[in-house]
Amino acid sequence: MPSIDFAAMDRMFHPRSIALAGIPISDPGHWTRTFLNSLLECGFAGPIYLVNPRGGEVKGLTVYRNISEVPGEIDYVISTVPPRAAAAHIAECAARGVRTIHFCTAGFSETGEADHARYEAELLNAARHHGVRIIGPNCMGIYCPESRVSFHTAFSMESGPVGLISQSGGNTIDLVMSGKWRGIRFSKVVSYGNAADLDESDFLQYFTEDPKTRIVAVYIEGVKDGRRFRQTLSKAALLKPVVLLKGGVSESGNRAAAGHTAVLSSSDHTWEALCRQTGVIRVCSLEELTDVLVTLLYMPRPGGRRAAIIGPGGGSSVLAGDEFERHGLKVPPLSPSVRQQLGHFTPIEGNILRNPVDYSQNIIEFDKLAEATRILSGWDECDFVVGYARPNLAAPHLLGRISPIINAMLQGARSGGKPLAIIFQPGVPPNIASQITEISDKFIAEGIPIYYSFGRAARAISAVQTWNERRNRTT
Amino acid sequence: MPSIDFAAMDRMFHPRSIALAGIPISDPGHWTRTFLNSLLECGFAGPIYLVNPRGGEVKGLTVYRNISEVPGEIDYVISTVPPRAAAAHIAECAARGVRTIHFCTAGFSETGEADHARYEAELLNAARHHGVRIIGPNCMGIYCPESRVSFHTAFSMESGPVGLISQSGGNTIDLVMSGKWRGIRFSKVVSYGNAADLDESDFLQYFTEDPKTRIVAVYIEGVKDGRRFRQTLSKAALLKPVVLLKGGVSESGNRAAAGHTAVLSSSDHTWEALCRQTGVIRVCSLEELTDVLVTLLYMPRPGGRRAAIIGPGGGSSVLAGDEFERHGLKVPPLSPSVRQQLGHFTPIEGNILRNPVDYSQNIIEFDKLAEATRILSGWDECDFVVGYARPNLAAPHLLGRISPIINAMLQGARSGGKPLAIIFQPGVPPNIASQITEISDKFIAEGIPIYYSFGRAARAISAVQTWNERRNRTT
Repeated sequence: MPSIDFAAMDRMFHPRSIALAGIPISDPGHWTRTFLNSLLECGFAGPIYLVNPRGGEVKGLTVYRNISEVPGEIDYVISTVPPRAAAAHIAECAARGVRTIHFCTAGFSETGEADHARYEAELLNAARHHGVRIIGPNCMGIYCPESRVSFHTAFSMESGPVGLISQSGGNTIDLVMSGKWRGIRFSKVVSYGNAADLDESDFLQYFTEDPKTRIVAVYIEGVKDGRRFRQTLSKAALLKPVVLLKGGVSESGNRAAAGHTAVLSSSDHTWEALCRQTGVIRVCSLEELTDVLVTLLYMPRPGGRRAAIIGPGGGSSVLAGDEFERHGLKVPPLSPSVRQQLGHFTPIEGNILRNPVDYSQNIIEFDKLAEATRILSGWDECDFVVGYARPNLAAPHLLGRISPIINAMLQGARSGGKPLAIIFQPGVPPNIASQITEISDKFIAEGIPIYYSFGRAARAISAVQTWNERRNRTT
Repeated sequence: MPSIDFAAMDRMFHPRSIALAGIPISDPGHWTRTFLNSLLECGFAGPIYLVNPRGGEVKGLTVYRNISEVPGEIDYVISTVPPRAAAAHIAECAARGVRTIHFCTAGFSETGEADHARYEAELLNAARHHGVRIIGPNCMGIYCPESRVSFHTAFSMESGPVGLISQSGGNTIDLVMSGKWRGIRFSKVVSYGNAADLDESDFLQYFTEDPKTRIVAVYIEGVKDGRRFRQTLSKAALLKPVVLLKGGVSESGNRAAAGHTAVLSSSDHTWEALCRQTGVIRVCSLEELTDVLVTLLYMPRPGGRRAAIIGPGGGSSVLAGDEFERHGLKVPPLSPSVRQQLGHFTPIEGNILRNPVDYSQNIIEFDKLAEATRILSGWDECDFVVGYARPNLAAPHLLGRISPIINAMLQGARSGGKPLAIIFQPGVPPNIASQITEISDKFIAEGIPIYYSFGRAARAISAVQTWNERRNRTT
């Protein structure tokens, strides 16, 4: 199995200087300006060189007419030059000692047109010939908060333990942006597109070895070398939790993947088997990927699948029980002694002292709620506690009290000693959204996993628990 | 099969006067105040009488010490008197000519305690003896915009075609509130709890006959008379689309349902078979119920399952294709002639001219986008068009342009003549939420179905299409 040069790849994520080749001069609204804007706004510390045959000045920076005019050393190039100019461009870069080029440009093999596929072959030949490594083409490249390299001005500059390898730029933005308010922070991220040179196995191997990455997330449309990928994935999954979303499992998704990153993807079953055999957590959507990352990051591994659920609302408690069991978790009946303990200070009128526990009538008596949660958390027939609240949809008197409700659950679960997961609904109407975000931020800072529907929580917790059980069996 | 008195039930939804019995005097923050606040704020036109043994005044209204002191005629009573006083209360109400009492009070058979179950039996006996009909106990009662009867101050006072029968008050609030910003409006809604007297079959029969109700939504935990319910459901589903969410299908959900509304619910398989046989659309969560209602309300029935999908983002297009096929819809390959037509004015670099169509590079050239959508909509191998945008997660330059993007898709789909569905992501961070809500409102007003994930859209459209196909076979 070919091995990567870890130090060389690590340098890609930490360039000392960057040249932007093909920066649009006359159109400040052109989308590729995002590279310049992001480096500036995110505070990239090294020199940034702009290159465009027209020359001139952009944002106070000189625009050099070609790479050879750039005055300083160039570590890394972000290139938006057209496909037909790619090979020559690589030669010029090599002459200036450039080690890595991120080719953002699209219009290569993914078009399905022979002449465009030829540009990609020429690009690869040139790269091999000149000893330059290529990320892409047809991708967004690197985001690494540590080195302040970014391709979106709104990405967080806080580092975290998640490494993301993604074949799609848009899906990367989606994940990083939703991760931002879900408490997911990244060590480094790479959107690698057509993978003409550096491919999924190279990056996966790098992330496996990278001490800054504790959890690996993968969005993949297809692989270049199936055998190597399987070996790399196995090794990665042995050492770190790996969560994988395969794009292009249906006939049409497959077709789209071929058009998107020029891959030949294999069947859904193949991927299912691969993930099961290698111990990879497989997910089916970006939402699920986000939920699983939240679980891995914030939920201490419970001892098993048995949930004790508490919150306000009888109908909610019914649906919560259904969703948790539908996704393979268990919601055991309350033991008589626990029921009795709760009954000492909780009236049965308007509450349901079963599991799930509907605590409607006393939900804003925070001492009682904390005590009830403590009792559930200490119950030896449960492995973790789930607290729920429905802020935007419940009675108006609850709206301002979600934060103390969750707080009481948190205190109770902590004294009981079991992991806690919190579910509440996303707030789309803006007045509610602002409250949700505040509450969310507060409890993410406390290290609590927060989810936005019963089904999504149950599915994510179950996926991680399945992974956990397999791991315990094999180690 | 017992038949309902339609006129009598219709009067329940349109009371001329209402008494609130058991209104809390000393605690203005007590949650049951929601009944008074809602009637006042929603503009109920008839007299509102307050009754509490303590007497006094609340919000400028006299509090009468008992029902007999009330000066005017009382059509309808909302009662929060304790369970042990229920039977006597019914007698007093009957003496004043009251025809219907909504018993909000909990603490009856749902507690699982023998003495509390006895209160319910006594309540039912008293009601039968005095010829008074009961809604409940243990429920939130009626919401009917037409008569301005409501139990939540934030419910819309605009009427719509959806009738909702729900055994849970909290789930009712959830549905009405999420319906509010999803464009779902209700003819009338009833939360009926333990169903001691009036039950699911009575309400279902009423909604089936009600000319103001075109679509029936049901949240149900269990039935009193299985045979009658099956007959009622069959008849309802013959005449109107019926969407049903069964709460309590798992062991624990079942247990919660028993504690919630004292029902004995039967197995998941029984319900699945019942829905299939009667032609009812069955859903598994409140989110899915909402999505299906959006589909029924806003998506003209397409001729079949074949979607043409268009939007910005290669990775999005891959996942969109996967989700639509995963949920039983079809995403056929573009025919060469359509591909050619699109190719005339759309470059292949950075776009994907397959199906799904990734229109990334030209998404804000609205004329091109409209024309591309028109071509897809006119394509004879597709039955409907799906447009997507990812406002909060895509490149910053798209953020302010979502509305014209959807507009272009709408214009294009209209000239092509096929139904259109729009998907974009919910905006949880508040700055995004406000934009989302605005855009959402605008296109809901245009009568376009809007969804918030590929999976949810695909699942809802597929569920309605399955219903549609069965219907076409049988009629």
